[in-house]
Amino acid sequence: LKKKSIPSITINRLSIYHRCLEKILETEKGKELKIISSFKIAEMTGINSAQIRKDLAYFGEFGKRGLGYPLIDLSRELKKILGLDKKWSVIIAGAGNLGKALVKYKGFQKRGFIIKGIFDNNPSKIGKKLGHIFIYDIKEVEKFIQAENINIGILVVPADSAQEVADKMVAGGIKAILNFAPVHIVLPLEIIIHNVDLAIEFEGLTYYLSQ
Amino acid sequence: LKKKSIPSITINRLSIYHRCLEKILETEKGKELKIISSFKIAEMTGINSAQIRKDLAYFGEFGKRGLGYPLIDLSRELKKILGLDKKWSVIIAGAGNLGKALVKYKGFQKRGFIIKGIFDNNPSKIGKKLGHIFIYDIKEVEKFIQAENINIGILVVPADSAQEVADKMVAGGIKAILNFAPVHIVLPLEIIIHNVDLAIEFEGLTYYLSQ
Repeated sequence: LKKKSIPSITINRLSIYHRCLEKILETEKGKELKIISSFKIAEMTGINSAQIRKDLAYFGEFGKRGLGYPLIDLSRELKKILGLDKKWSVIIAGAGNLGKALVKYKGFQKRGFIIKGIFDNNPSKIGKKLGHIFIYDIKEVEKFIQAENINIGILVVPADSAQEVADKMVAGGIKAILNFAPVHIVLPLEIIIHNVDLAIEFEGLTYYLSQ
Repeated sequence: LKKKSIPSITINRLSIYHRCLEKILETEKGKELKIISSFKIAEMTGINSAQIRKDLAYFGEFGKRGLGYPLIDLSRELKKILGLDKKWSVIIAGAGNLGKALVKYKGFQKRGFIIKGIFDNNPSKIGKKLGHIFIYDIKEVEKFIQAENINIGILVVPADSAQEVADKMVAGGIKAILNFAPVHIVLPLEIIIHNVDLAIEFEGLTYYLSQ
């Protein structure tokens, strides 16, 4: 499979397709289905079918023109491409409301993202639990990442401490950071960082509302 | 200005550029600056300069080749394009952790998104406040949207009630919905819906971690 220089927006859509196929495979009728068309995926996801065929073509020839895609094979292949056939160990830095919301977010564990610990600098939070996850002192984060072999860090700390906490995570050996703090973080090139900016999600809407 | 068929990913990047220019204009040095190059924006945002020039070209000729962009004009124009020169009235449906986190999120008010009310169906929450915002009965949401002329609804309710609450919002006259519930919602075509899927943000990372 060619996997180079695929736009990140395509990767996001592959997640959506994978989720759609899983949903079909969970139903009784879906279990008997052998073939899925791009039109059916389009109907379920709201993404147009030409885009879907183009996205899937990045990874070789899954389907035959006019016949659709083999449902189970496509689902399995997408899962592998997306790295969802593995378990990933995750920590959260920041035990505020957003941190709490993320701990409870049901979609994570289901997809193999296991939250191993939460970190904060507030003494009144350290040692307590959120759900069944312990809150540790942020000073321990570097050691914890090493000891527990953590893959992904989620940053939900205030903007003015985000860089410092991210640096600690990298020193501990983390490979990827999901950053919710509204600030641009500078990291070594080999670290994957993905910025989630909630205000930007809004601005997309107001652009369209203004037309 | 031509504004048709601009990819939504470009709109997201325009938000990032606008934010970057604002940050420059807030500094002492920035206030004296007249011209900004795509290279400087690239350096600050991490987006490559060719992409920046391409994105800005959608909206006509802001800059001159090799001379850069007029800083204040570009910032003002982006603000207008993104609909950020207006105030927008927002409600939140769902007073859970994510709802709480969004109420406290400082980026919203600063950009003209005014949260006017929170709605929930839990009697122990209704009538209380989150920060300085009242929690109302979800049954009132339709009337409230009409009376207060609300533009945007944020859905942070559980997946199994998301469609029902979205329908209520639309009945009240809402024009745009930001959906955090992990479910595909079907709405009339004229309603703008933007789905924020936190698990998908993760899956982008694991794709790159798997390479």
